[in-house]
Amino acid sequence: MSTETPLLLVLDLIGTFAFALNGALTAVRAERLDIFGVVTVGMFTALGGGTIRDILLDSLPPATFVDVRYLALAAAGGLLAFFLGRLLERLSTFINVLDAIGLSVFAVLSAYKASTLGFGVVQAIIVGTITAVGGGTIRDIMIGRVPTVLRTELYAIPAMIGAGGALAANAVGVHGLPGTLGAAALCFAIRMLSLRFNIHAPYRPGPP
Amino acid sequence: MSTETPLLLVLDLIGTFAFALNGALTAVRAERLDIFGVVTVGMFTALGGGTIRDILLDSLPPATFVDVRYLALAAAGGLLAFFLGRLLERLSTFINVLDAIGLSVFAVLSAYKASTLGFGVVQAIIVGTITAVGGGTIRDIMIGRVPTVLRTELYAIPAMIGAGGALAANAVGVHGLPGTLGAAALCFAIRMLSLRFNIHAPYRPGPP
Amino acid sequence: MSTETPLLLVLDLIGTFAFALNGALTAVRAERLDIFGVVTVGMFTALGGGTIRDILLDSLPPATFVDVRYLALAAAGGLLAFFLGRLLERLSTFINVLDAIGLSVFAVLSAYKASTLGFGVVQAIIVGTITAVGGGTIRDIMIGRVPTVLRTELYAIPAMIGAGGALAANAVGVHGLPGTLGAAALCFAIRMLSLRFNIHAPYRPGPP
Repeated sequence: MSTETPLLLVLDLIGTFAFALNGALTAVRAERLDIFGVVTVGMFTALGGGTIRDILLDSLPPATFVDVRYLALAAAGGLLAFFLGRLLERLSTFINVLDAIGLSVFAVLSAYKASTLGFGVVQAIIVGTITAVGGGTIRDIMIGRVPTVLRTELYAIPAMIGAGGALAANAVGVHGLPGTLGAAALCFAIRMLSLRFNIHAPYRPGPP
Repeated sequence: MSTETPLLLVLDLIGTFAFALNGALTAVRAERLDIFGVVTVGMFTALGGGTIRDILLDSLPPATFVDVRYLALAAAGGLLAFFLGRLLERLSTFINVLDAIGLSVFAVLSAYKASTLGFGVVQAIIVGTITAVGGGTIRDIMIGRVPTVLRTELYAIPAMIGAGGALAANAVGVHGLPGTLGAAALCFAIRMLSLRFNIHAPYRPGPP
Repeated sequence: MSTETPLLLVLDLIGTFAFALNGALTAVRAERLDIFGVVTVGMFTALGGGTIRDILLDSLPPATFVDVRYLALAAAGGLLAFFLGRLLERLSTFINVLDAIGLSVFAVLSAYKASTLGFGVVQAIIVGTITAVGGGTIRDIMIGRVPTVLRTELYAIPAMIGAGGALAANAVGVHGLPGTLGAAALCFAIRMLSLRFNIHAPYRPGPP
């Protein structure tokens, strides 16, 4: 199951755009960046995770670097944040939904990619998670803050569950679009519920 | 047009040395680093952009890692900054000129490299820009500050124009050294003018 | 001489575990991270250096990513730090010893790997050093501080000496386990002595 299916391609492109938009909006809130800085942070947020994936899977050049549609949508997300950032702040729920779509699709499709290339289950889950959260990690490092994904919110764990769910669906014979969409929906639901109910991953036991 | 031309090889090596020197000087001004730290930051500034380029272009091992002349000049720039940093602070105009040579040559030659390897125009301009500004970005992240190139000065935009100009020259039939040097000179001129007249890339519209 | 020798494989796995444990403990001391953050920082500390090595040597996918034993030990080190961090703080000398084993084995085996793949002496020493100190550098950048290895302690220099010593032993005909263990012991001894006597790499001359 790959981005050759039109529906999955569209969801993957939506995710790319949403990651760029969200990454660039985060950057302009945190730091005074010029137009190059905002668009660059947006593009790294959208494309950084997939680049790390393709390094780990020895699948260079990175798929999203070769395909100009991904580059264009990532740049568009960054430019939109630059020019319309103040208006877009009001649409934060809508942007969170788009971002969760990206998280889900990236995790599931990257886990499949690793699996198709012959990597094991552990590696496929790691790669699915890194693809989903890697871009946001790079973004936070670029704007000088400890990555959100390491500190708060439930962001990586839904991605791990989605990636694992996709592999499990395949293992029990649910191939193709149903397995892919089911696993992505699981990731999406956990992410949205965690935002709604403000759920965090556990902190270490004992006094802080 | 590659570094096989002696003149371009010399300019590329000058740029490598200048990036290492400038990167290491920036590091010693900002942080108290030991000799390993200063030389390392200098070498990453000089060689980091080309390494990212060669990852994106699937052209590993990185060209500047294989060629010991680049490693030696990058180390020499770092050592010079360590031992003579205080004297060199007085030569900042001269170092800015060397650094702008590096910016121009890296942008133009990397765009050609991408083009020669069969990548499209968009990818070639991205790679030219990343090669030119990537090292400085890594340097700033290593010393704990938000990368200058994202925030202030005109640094990435001349690189984009130089990379684009080189591809345009090729497209209209100006091959070889004239096209290369012309595009690099364009990048160099914009960079030096922006320093002279303190020109910045635009910030987002509205109140800060 | 590679990790095919059982003794070296065991030392390499001990080093991986120690790097993950030490990296995760450093992270929980410095920042309030959730369980995903602590384990992630531990795994990046343990596996980051080897990943950079395998990028530079064009030896992708990274060896420690393919081998699930390395992934499991790195995750175990991170989980142990998460659950037992407060107890482990009392074992800092023991953890420093394990960490120095990792430093030594990573430097020596990575220099051999570069050499076996046909890279020169300079490249082999650089790769040995980067493998040994790269993980800790990534860890510090992730938790928002200037990398320790650039600022203080004697950490990279023992690694360079160990890597160089391993190549020298090979060059004078001391092949196999004796050369490997001798070079690693040299690195280990310098590292432990520098901790014991609080030795730092030189800072630049003149007033600070």
